[in-house]
Amino acid sequence: MTEKTNTLKNTNDQGNLMSAEQDQTPFEAEIKNLRDTIDDIDEQILTLIAKRLKEVKKVVALKKEHNMPVFHPAREEDLISKLRSHANSSGVDADFIEDLYRVILRNSRIHQTVEMKQQGIKPGGKVLIAGGYGQMGSYFANLFRASGYDVRILSEDNWESVETLCQGIDLAIISVPINVTLSVTERLAPHIPDDALLADLTSIKKFPMEQMLKQHQGPVIGLHPLFGPTCATLDKQIIAITPGRYGEKCQWLIDQLILWGAVVVNSDASEHDEIMDIVQALRHFATFCFGRFLSKRKIDLGKTLEFSSPIYRLELGMVGRLFAQDSGLYSEIIFATPERREILKEFAASLNDQIEMLDNCDKEIFTERFREIAQWFGPFSEQAMRESTFIIDKLIERF
Amino acid sequence: MTEKTNTLKNTNDQGNLMSAEQDQTPFEAEIKNLRDTIDDIDEQILTLIAKRLKEVKKVVALKKEHNMPVFHPAREEDLISKLRSHANSSGVDADFIEDLYRVILRNSRIHQTVEMKQQGIKPGGKVLIAGGYGQMGSYFANLFRASGYDVRILSEDNWESVETLCQGIDLAIISVPINVTLSVTERLAPHIPDDALLADLTSIKKFPMEQMLKQHQGPVIGLHPLFGPTCATLDKQIIAITPGRYGEKCQWLIDQLILWGAVVVNSDASEHDEIMDIVQALRHFATFCFGRFLSKRKIDLGKTLEFSSPIYRLELGMVGRLFAQDSGLYSEIIFATPERREILKEFAASLNDQIEMLDNCDKEIFTERFREIAQWFGPFSEQAMRESTFIIDKLIERF
Repeated sequence: MTEKTNTLKNTNDQGNLMSAEQDQTPFEAEIKNLRDTIDDIDEQILTLIAKRLKEVKKVVALKKEHNMPVFHPAREEDLISKLRSHANSSGVDADFIEDLYRVILRNSRIHQTVEMKQQGIKPGGKVLIAGGYGQMGSYFANLFRASGYDVRILSEDNWESVETLCQGIDLAIISVPINVTLSVTERLAPHIPDDALLADLTSIKKFPMEQMLKQHQGPVIGLHPLFGPTCATLDKQIIAITPGRYGEKCQWLIDQLILWGAVVVNSDASEHDEIMDIVQALRHFATFCFGRFLSKRKIDLGKTLEFSSPIYRLELGMVGRLFAQDSGLYSEIIFATPERREILKEFAASLNDQIEMLDNCDKEIFTERFREIAQWFGPFSEQAMRESTFIIDKLIERF
Repeated sequence: MTEKTNTLKNTNDQGNLMSAEQDQTPFEAEIKNLRDTIDDIDEQILTLIAKRLKEVKKVVALKKEHNMPVFHPAREEDLISKLRSHANSSGVDADFIEDLYRVILRNSRIHQTVEMKQQGIKPGGKVLIAGGYGQMGSYFANLFRASGYDVRILSEDNWESVETLCQGIDLAIISVPINVTLSVTERLAPHIPDDALLADLTSIKKFPMEQMLKQHQGPVIGLHPLFGPTCATLDKQIIAITPGRYGEKCQWLIDQLILWGAVVVNSDASEHDEIMDIVQALRHFATFCFGRFLSKRKIDLGKTLEFSSPIYRLELGMVGRLFAQDSGLYSEIIFATPERREILKEFAASLNDQIEMLDNCDKEIFTERFREIAQWFGPFSEQAMRESTFIIDKLIERF
């Protein structure tokens, strides 16, 4: 049996407010006065925030006129430094002011990005998206449309119009499940104009790139957006890019992604896939295994959450998140290549190493392994500690 | 080879500012004007925030005088609702204003908690902490001291003074590593006055509670703080409580924890330990195994981070965080009881179930298992999705 224990007087001034002012003790009256003052200050703050947003909009309009990018790290960091030093001199905690302004700056960045979205590097350009009714496909279709591109969607339902749809296109993007990427590329490529850019959004790159380069003789580039289609904007989101052919002819597309706010990182196809074996496949697989064990043991999740440390809450959130999503997406990621399945098998088998240690209650072996790993992680651990502490604070703050 | 690609003009108005104002284009001059206006607004906001803090301090002083608790969920939610509706009527995004005020409210809560800390339920009460030089021991020692308690520290070094240190104490807290909890309790108990409260901070409860109840005939209570000694305040931190004997005589201690801002949850010792098998041991063990695999495979962490999705970054942060901490702490948690080691072994062995699936590239089995687990997670998945999306946004915002 568990219950929250709270025997302190549970003062609820909702109640006080409702019982009107005639019965107020001097204490209540004084508290009410102070709260009125605070409410008044809050109203003034809100008014200033609204005013600030208006000024930011003017900056955006100007930038738009002059084709300038939205995100301006130097200006942001400069602003934060100034505010921190002002905070110190007015006796306000500088970290607190920084937290506050990170929220404000992010908000104005989103506004700017939403505005700038409209802006196209090649407005009027014709973009075909194969699989453009899928989640990621329609996400990009909307981005291109909002920036003045002429977007056409190709799907199984309108395949018979492929010829018309491909006429005069500047860019074809393949956004279909991994298991049909190769066949769709093969079917689509003959209809694409020779000088059009061919790109894909597949989460592996080796086989899709080989296929695109083989089937299409014009410019080719691989894209792998490292985020889900639920993101409000591309602001600071990472897109991995694999160069294919005629890089200079692909540059406008990269510029467009950057203008939308994305951070673009380059790698060749094999390196990309090796990194994703870990970043995506291993991580999701480990989460899957953890979730499976919880469900097999029928763990009482509610109970564990009630007693949870912030770390556990966060970890369990990551597990729950995975199972809130599409099983197909994860099965494509996990089973993508034989090399990947080999690594996942190795990982699964590696846990057997720990069984003997547990059997023998061998704390020495544990400590030895722990120290080896800690040493290998090196300075990253400190960074992880700092970042995760920040995140845990946010979690405690909100929930 | 990987590199950041950014071919858009990298406008840096730090440069503009430094090159003085004579060379400004009309565009630059206009941008500068707008930014000056924004800076001016920011200064006004900062002034109001400082003013707000002052008013909050007055509320705290009043509450202190009247022995009222700090955290006031009803008042906070009321304030947020009012601000959201003001935001809507001034054309500002209500979610943004809520985010902003969560930061402000948390800050004023911390201030309040820091102030209220001073306040003791039993000021002048004598508190002995066995192991009070350890991290958790000194954390609590500081809390008690700041609230006007007379705190004495017992360690191996001053054990010969145990008789004097225990004289007239109201509370003895055992804060030593799990593996010496039983022996320290046995040695200490005979020196504790019969009516003094005996408590511990151990992360398991069954054996320590049995021992405390056996060795001490007065009031007994088990505490398990579900946070690390690096937290700035107890604000919203969870402490698990296991009732032992003479609950009404333990109440002042619970009240003190709540007054410090903690959220207190109750359970009996066996239930507590079962929950912690999962919340602490399994979670840390899974993280340990993941870290070990990364280090054995010598994965290039920097490279994976460069290409990381926010989820991976968060997960890797959790892994790195573990290895930034003390191996002894984790070995005590992981090896604490035979039942716990049994569960961890089961977990390690459960990954073998997946090897055949990977060998056969059996997506059907994967999908079936995935759906079973998703169903079992039920509505929690949606909640996890919401919470983790919030956290991921925070992560993107900051780093």
